[in-house]
Amino acid sequence: MALPSSVRIVEVSPRDGLQNEKTMVSTVDKIELINRLSDCGLKTIEATSFVSPKWVPQMADAAEVYAGIDKRPGIAYPVLVPNLQGYERARAVGVQEIAVFTAASEAFNQKNINASIAESLERFAPVITAAQDDGVRVRGYVSTVLGCPYQGEVPLSDVVRVAKDLYAMGCYEISLGDTIGVGTPAKARAMLQAVAAEVPMDALAIHFHDTYGQALANILACLEEGVSVVDAAVAGTGGCPYAQGASGNVASEDVAYMLQGMGIKTGIDFTKLVGTGVWLAGRLGRETGSKAGRAYDP
Amino acid sequence: MALPSSVRIVEVSPRDGLQNEKTMVSTVDKIELINRLSDCGLKTIEATSFVSPKWVPQMADAAEVYAGIDKRPGIAYPVLVPNLQGYERARAVGVQEIAVFTAASEAFNQKNINASIAESLERFAPVITAAQDDGVRVRGYVSTVLGCPYQGEVPLSDVVRVAKDLYAMGCYEISLGDTIGVGTPAKARAMLQAVAAEVPMDALAIHFHDTYGQALANILACLEEGVSVVDAAVAGTGGCPYAQGASGNVASEDVAYMLQGMGIKTGIDFTKLVGTGVWLAGRLGRETGSKAGRAYDP
Repeated sequence: MALPSSVRIVEVSPRDGLQNEKTMVSTVDKIELINRLSDCGLKTIEATSFVSPKWVPQMADAAEVYAGIDKRPGIAYPVLVPNLQGYERARAVGVQEIAVFTAASEAFNQKNINASIAESLERFAPVITAAQDDGVRVRGYVSTVLGCPYQGEVPLSDVVRVAKDLYAMGCYEISLGDTIGVGTPAKARAMLQAVAAEVPMDALAIHFHDTYGQALANILACLEEGVSVVDAAVAGTGGCPYAQGASGNVASEDVAYMLQGMGIKTGIDFTKLVGTGVWLAGRLGRETGSKAGRAYDP
Repeated sequence: MALPSSVRIVEVSPRDGLQNEKTMVSTVDKIELINRLSDCGLKTIEATSFVSPKWVPQMADAAEVYAGIDKRPGIAYPVLVPNLQGYERARAVGVQEIAVFTAASEAFNQKNINASIAESLERFAPVITAAQDDGVRVRGYVSTVLGCPYQGEVPLSDVVRVAKDLYAMGCYEISLGDTIGVGTPAKARAMLQAVAAEVPMDALAIHFHDTYGQALANILACLEEGVSVVDAAVAGTGGCPYAQGASGNVASEDVAYMLQGMGIKTGIDFTKLVGTGVWLAGRLGRETGSKAGRAYDP
């Protein structure tokens, strides 16, 4: 066991969180959310997504959101980009970091973006090349790493291959996502080990949804393997389109509470983080999905 | 790491769960709950508490509940007993196993049962002796092992001492409880290691509340240390009297899902367990507190 001494939380509530919430949040509130998150000490905040508004109406204001936020020195504000067109829209407002996404499951890719894994990688190749030419950093997502709503089991070899390809294409970091939150610690650990045999551990991040309540245990297992970047979303925003009534992303507050309790540095002001989650939940008209957020009384 | 090949879940919803729920459950429903739990394949179900109804009105029907349940062969139905009077009431309805409880925190014991730790152990001595004479098994609870709502930090040496004393007095199993759910995995692991240096690991159980969302991660850390008995409550019943709106016991469904996913045997029928949690939540007029229970679609 080699627990990291510090962990970077990649805050995904403005994108992965809000994208899957039923309640639409105004552009002004999205900007306030990101500015509040910047105040919390987070170093990476995924700000929005330049996908087509036809697919994801929640992100139709991507350009306004990105243009409106305070860009603080030392904080990265990556945005999701599905193709060259999205990349150009993002660059038009000065985006400095993008994220591209594919899945380890063929069935999921077909249903989600109407492309095979190989086709999705081909689609990203010119985006990554353009980004490299522009000095823009690229983060890569691999989803369905522990299971797929369409094909069920996802072979580990597919996860490893896709992660390795994205890394070889130039992504500085690969986020391994259990999109439907079905994984358990032993499987999460084995998956991470397999990928880390081909991609350096310090280029890997983990991304868990708390659909079955397993996210924090899975994160612990992966921390024990040495991963030191963890995606999370305040208030546990996100939901799960594949399981009704289910939880969303692992709550940043719960992750931060665990790390703090284990003496692992995050640079996060926990009280401000909880406050931001409570504020966001209010905007969404519901209770925060973070248990630490509910229990903590500053 | 030495993960156990099988784990026994001690189901505490009928006692620790319902005792801390605002909604009172009828005697008939309590009996149905326990019978349903027996059907799930659980081997230990804490049935009720013979404390004074003045202190815990939810458990005033302890004798009726115990008398009314089906006692299945191979399943233990321990009941909580605070003193000799409670023990005698329990024995009058044929109880075969009891549980006694104290805390590792002096301040908590004083507030909770108006006795020092030493006094609480003295109070239990004749109960344990009587039980031993009657061939009744005794389980011991140590609460506040990772923090106390009154004194804050609880010295590890106090946890070890109380656990060791209860074991020496004749308890076959000591359940180590993070009553207020403030612990994190490294602290949980260190606490278990310290106790296991003085009490055999196979005489130890862990008891986590999910107040800060840490329960499953804490359980994983303790499983890695070799513990193989885990207390839990279907639907995550219990709440926390010390943190408003907070979660209760770790949900049995979430624990069972994790263990099943890790290939650790529990003997539990997961589908029935989820069904029991959903049924209980209905009786309590609220959504189940188990994320696995919400997400699972049999």
